Amino acid sequence: MDTIQNIYSRRSVRKYTEKQIDDEILKQILTAGMSGPSAVNKRPFEFLVSNKKDILEKMAEANGPYAAPLKKAALGVMVMGDISKDYIGEHGYWIIDCSIACQNMILAANSFGIGSVWLGSYPEIDRVKKLKELFSLPEHIVPHSIISFGYPEKKDSQIRNLYEEAKVHLDHW
Amino acid sequence: MDTIQNIYSRRSVRKYTEKQIDDEILKQILTAGMSGPSAVNKRPFEFLVSNKKDILEKMAEANGPYAAPLKKAALGVMVMGDISKDYIGEHGYWIIDCSIACQNMILAANSFGIGSVWLGSYPEIDRVKKLKELFSLPEHIVPHSIISFGYPEKKDSQIRNLYEEAKVHLDHW
Repeated sequence: MDTIQNIYSRRSVRKYTEKQIDDEILKQILTAGMSGPSAVNKRPFEFLVSNKKDILEKMAEANGPYAAPLKKAALGVMVMGDISKDYIGEHGYWIIDCSIACQNMILAANSFGIGSVWLGSYPEIDRVKKLKELFSLPEHIVPHSIISFGYPEKKDSQIRNLYEEAKVHLDHW
Repeated sequence: MDTIQNIYSRRSVRKYTEKQIDDEILKQILTAGMSGPSAVNKRPFEFLVSNKKDILEKMAEANGPYAAPLKKAALGVMVMGDISKDYIGEHGYWIIDCSIACQNMILAANSFGIGSVWLGSYPEIDRVKKLKELFSLPEHIVPHSIISFGYPEKKDSQIRNLYEEAKVHLDHW
């Protein structure tokens, strides 16, 4: 799918069909997640992947009510940061690096006709703590976001124009 | 350009030709920056855009030695967060929302054959402070990153495979 069409037509998809995601496509989505830039090339991102209903349900519960779409998703990918690799530490560049991984995966999925919704975890400490406990993550591994994936119940690939002139400041504020 | 090809071939480009970026293409890049998801749809991103050498040089100086490519770039876009729109505040979701804006712009540019390099500002407080001073930004507007754009001196659109099996955790950590 053309990049511009992809970026302009992407939207959050919260309802999915029962169709599963092929392993080869999953690998391409994860490869996209690992293809972004990262500060000083530290690549501090890690991925916990599941297509198992019971695991997705527990993940959703830990991440609060907005994470409900995950319960009926074909796939959930929790992106986590390894803060031991960040040269600043807990509030460092890993937050940005993991965000890039998420957005790359969302666009890659959209190009395969797979919808997704971004479920924020970090910096909501309650969610982060529950997810860490659920998966017994080591101290230095911090849940960042969960992306819920599935084939859309309703297809909508209409281009939207979200440009706002007021957000553009030419040469000065 | 195909999305997967784009994501897999993107790399940081620090040396540019003298060729300028057309206004219509710039608008499409900025539109891409405004097309990502944002937490609770707050859209806290703002863009300071310049193709003026003197402004790009000052921006580069404020952002430290790694920002040198900006001095010879065709275009610089500083992405800023409006923390007054973030329901968590200073350490909130705006950091993620602005990261999405940056990555969308980088991929959009790449699809037009325009190279870029991501220059981190936040959370390096010294850079943030100098950029705020340089552009006399209001208190609630925080510099996040600068993206330096230009047509690449050397073209390299080779696909790379950056997949790492060890970063994928199936069902459990």
